[in-house]
Amino acid sequence: MNVLTAAPFEELSERLAAIADLRNVAQRLDWDQQTMMPPRGATARAEVVATVQRINHDMFISDETGRLLEAAGAALERASPDSDEARIVRVVARRWEKARRVPSQLAAELARAASVGQQVWIGARRDSDFAGFAPYLERNFDLVRRYVDCFDDFECAYDPLLDDYEPGARTVEVERLFDELKAELLSLMTTVRDHADRVDDSCLHGRFPVDRQRRLVSWLLEQMGFDPESWRVDDAVHPFASGFGNRDVRITTRWDQSFLPTGMYGAMHECGHGLYEEGVAESLQRTPLGHPDSLGLHESQSRLWENMVGRGRPFCGVLAPHIARLFGGPVSSLDGEALYRAVNRVVPSLIRVEADEVTYGLHIVLRFELEQELVEGRLAVRDLPEAWNARYKEYLGVDVPDDASGVLQDVHWAAGLIGYFPTYALGNLIAGQLFERAHAELPDLDGQLAAGHLRGLREWLRENVHQHGAKFSTGELLERVVGGAIAVGPFVQYLKRKLSQVYELEPS
Amino acid sequence: MNVLTAAPFEELSERLAAIADLRNVAQRLDWDQQTMMPPRGATARAEVVATVQRINHDMFISDETGRLLEAAGAALERASPDSDEARIVRVVARRWEKARRVPSQLAAELARAASVGQQVWIGARRDSDFAGFAPYLERNFDLVRRYVDCFDDFECAYDPLLDDYEPGARTVEVERLFDELKAELLSLMTTVRDHADRVDDSCLHGRFPVDRQRRLVSWLLEQMGFDPESWRVDDAVHPFASGFGNRDVRITTRWDQSFLPTGMYGAMHECGHGLYEEGVAESLQRTPLGHPDSLGLHESQSRLWENMVGRGRPFCGVLAPHIARLFGGPVSSLDGEALYRAVNRVVPSLIRVEADEVTYGLHIVLRFELEQELVEGRLAVRDLPEAWNARYKEYLGVDVPDDASGVLQDVHWAAGLIGYFPTYALGNLIAGQLFERAHAELPDLDGQLAAGHLRGLREWLRENVHQHGAKFSTGELLERVVGGAIAVGPFVQYLKRKLSQVYELEPS
Repeated sequence: MNVLTAAPFEELSERLAAIADLRNVAQRLDWDQQTMMPPRGATARAEVVATVQRINHDMFISDETGRLLEAAGAALERASPDSDEARIVRVVARRWEKARRVPSQLAAELARAASVGQQVWIGARRDSDFAGFAPYLERNFDLVRRYVDCFDDFECAYDPLLDDYEPGARTVEVERLFDELKAELLSLMTTVRDHADRVDDSCLHGRFPVDRQRRLVSWLLEQMGFDPESWRVDDAVHPFASGFGNRDVRITTRWDQSFLPTGMYGAMHECGHGLYEEGVAESLQRTPLGHPDSLGLHESQSRLWENMVGRGRPFCGVLAPHIARLFGGPVSSLDGEALYRAVNRVVPSLIRVEADEVTYGLHIVLRFELEQELVEGRLAVRDLPEAWNARYKEYLGVDVPDDASGVLQDVHWAAGLIGYFPTYALGNLIAGQLFERAHAELPDLDGQLAAGHLRGLREWLRENVHQHGAKFSTGELLERVVGGAIAVGPFVQYLKRKLSQVYELEPS
Repeated sequence: MNVLTAAPFEELSERLAAIADLRNVAQRLDWDQQTMMPPRGATARAEVVATVQRINHDMFISDETGRLLEAAGAALERASPDSDEARIVRVVARRWEKARRVPSQLAAELARAASVGQQVWIGARRDSDFAGFAPYLERNFDLVRRYVDCFDDFECAYDPLLDDYEPGARTVEVERLFDELKAELLSLMTTVRDHADRVDDSCLHGRFPVDRQRRLVSWLLEQMGFDPESWRVDDAVHPFASGFGNRDVRITTRWDQSFLPTGMYGAMHECGHGLYEEGVAESLQRTPLGHPDSLGLHESQSRLWENMVGRGRPFCGVLAPHIARLFGGPVSSLDGEALYRAVNRVVPSLIRVEADEVTYGLHIVLRFELEQELVEGRLAVRDLPEAWNARYKEYLGVDVPDDASGVLQDVHWAAGLIGYFPTYALGNLIAGQLFERAHAELPDLDGQLAAGHLRGLREWLRENVHQHGAKFSTGELLERVVGGAIAVGPFVQYLKRKLSQVYELEPS
């Protein structure tokens, strides 16, 4: 960039910074609503959120943004394609083109239907009333089909939806990955099913006072890099992480007095998300690349910390004595090996968010299959519960007793988040690839984890993943870090190794 | 309003609702910053706040707002002048005219200088370094003079400043009130000075554990009407109240382990502000009248609850046994009379925020006098400390040992809040008038307060003051409620009655 070309980009940057600020505001309002807001504030809050989003959307899709993008693009013609500036223009141009194709009227209808759907879903899940909920779900899928119709440059109907949560991902590619993953997971599930009696997780059930769990989690978060100068942690019904720039990272946790993993691993999960937000380079703050936009990559970070570190053999050796000391009683002699086996027990179950690492993927694959069929009209909403239950029987071998613990368990479809589910399983795959690569580059990694030293891994992730924010697509980033595209192999290898140890399938 | 005229007003309302939403966002960000935000989030936060304010300002002063105002005004020509609609147009037109006269460049300079000044002030107060701070203070007064120059329809230079905090108030009128108030307060101060030994406040000093103070304050707030469904209370270094509509009211408190009144009366003060925000009519929510805009009226509510109720004889009889039971030890036999006398002790002092009800007004009057002289150029910033110290000696009889506890004690001038101070004393006067009127309309009021029943007073205030939000100017509101303008009499009568009891100047 020379001096002559600086001006158009700077003008664009200023506008994009304001847009990033408003995104930050929307996130903050959401954090506040989930952690702090008195219940009766909800109605007025909905209006405020809608106003902020409308202003932000209008500012973004305006002709002015397009004009600035064009001028900045021309000015940057000779800039390196991997420079922050060139990347910003490219990423924003792509988002702008996509957003412009959606009429404001449709965008507003989508938002309203999502909000209404979410409200209705709460009651429907409580009463296990799918019939009452079906018209709202139909409406959401109708609107999503109209959304899909806005685009003509995608391969299949599901593509523009998937792309909203995993930019650049293609449905056929995810299908290929998931077919492979499904076969592997089904086979693993069958293997461990025959040895179910070898793993006992009774040590995780009992009485774990919340104040002691808080002490455990404080210690855990501190090891991971939680710094009270720029982080905070609060309670929430549905835990989440929120990054408001790299100096204000907020995570939330929930507690289960009778089941230890909920609080402990939930906190590691959210802290993994938080570290990603915190690690984004200073130079990308207040730019459109300042927040990671691939949910798959984001989930890879949370799952890597929660499962690969937290439920890994080396770190279980550090965790166990802490747990034994803090809670005493039945767990007073808990050792690393016992903890390692307990927290990795595989049990096919009904509820996604409670699933182990093996069956979790199957919960996702079947949702991905069903939502494609719904979007493409191959499955009618009224037939969804039956299809859901059949698939649970086929993949997981479980009978769904009612829709509340079946098709109504997740908020996503009710809230219009269609195309979101696959990113959870993609996150597992990516985590497998990154964890394998980290081991190759940090030969002593297991030793560090066994000593409770998490800094090496964190810095490796910061260097290779976090700092880039949304600068590279998931494909580009993986190409840089592991030299290839998303793949199933490393995650499955990791699972097989772990299960062979946990279930004593071969000498560990 | 008929059907034909509805459209222009509705279009205006929609725009004003968005502006009210953004104001709400700015308030929320400020609340978050003062209660929740990790310290390192401050830099990014400043940018977000600036963006929200700029967008809001631009939206408000736009030609489009003017066009809508004009159309709505025309459509409402035959509406009742006291209807919400006619009032909205009138109030907004006034604000719009005023805001439009200030060039964006100057508005930005004012905001920036305020922010810088506040930063510099922190260090200057810490080091008692007026010389280092003087250039920034000069800059603030220079800018404020340029701000004043934007207007030609005010009587004197101080008017447009005062009007920002107390809409419609005139400097000459405040001068008249303050001259009268000053004379009365000086005379009262002299009277009680001769009987200083009659009041002992040692019961307020001691050891008051914060957890017990919290229980006391919880009980107090509950009596006042605090409802966890729509309120919350948090800790803050500088307590404040924030209303985000009438269903989400947040107050903050601070605690002093060795001095009881700080936490207890601070909470009543902020709850008084909160009740005002909560009491605004549903029909005014998301309109420009939804937040009270007279700081004098607002302060009248906080001071009425803190001083007239909380430090009043009837309610002290309710408070004392609670305090005795909660803290025991030296206060285990505290009774209402002893508490009443202790919390109303008059002691001329250096620091405004620690002043009693008599000397408080003098702290304000001298600031009002000095800031007028500074604005009009009759006093130079470099001569300010000398003038300040002389006035403290003259009015309060105290020697100022250093500028930290003198002219540097308040943030207001540093933060560009020039014209703000008088509203504190106006609040006391208004509180006196409202409290007198409430007694006239609720003959049993003292009996209710003595029984700890605060509901009657709260509902009276809601009916007569709170519900109207910013619909009426202070003058109009007082005309409706007490049948006259702001006056000194009732407040001074109230003080005299209280002091005659506390200092046994005549049989109580």
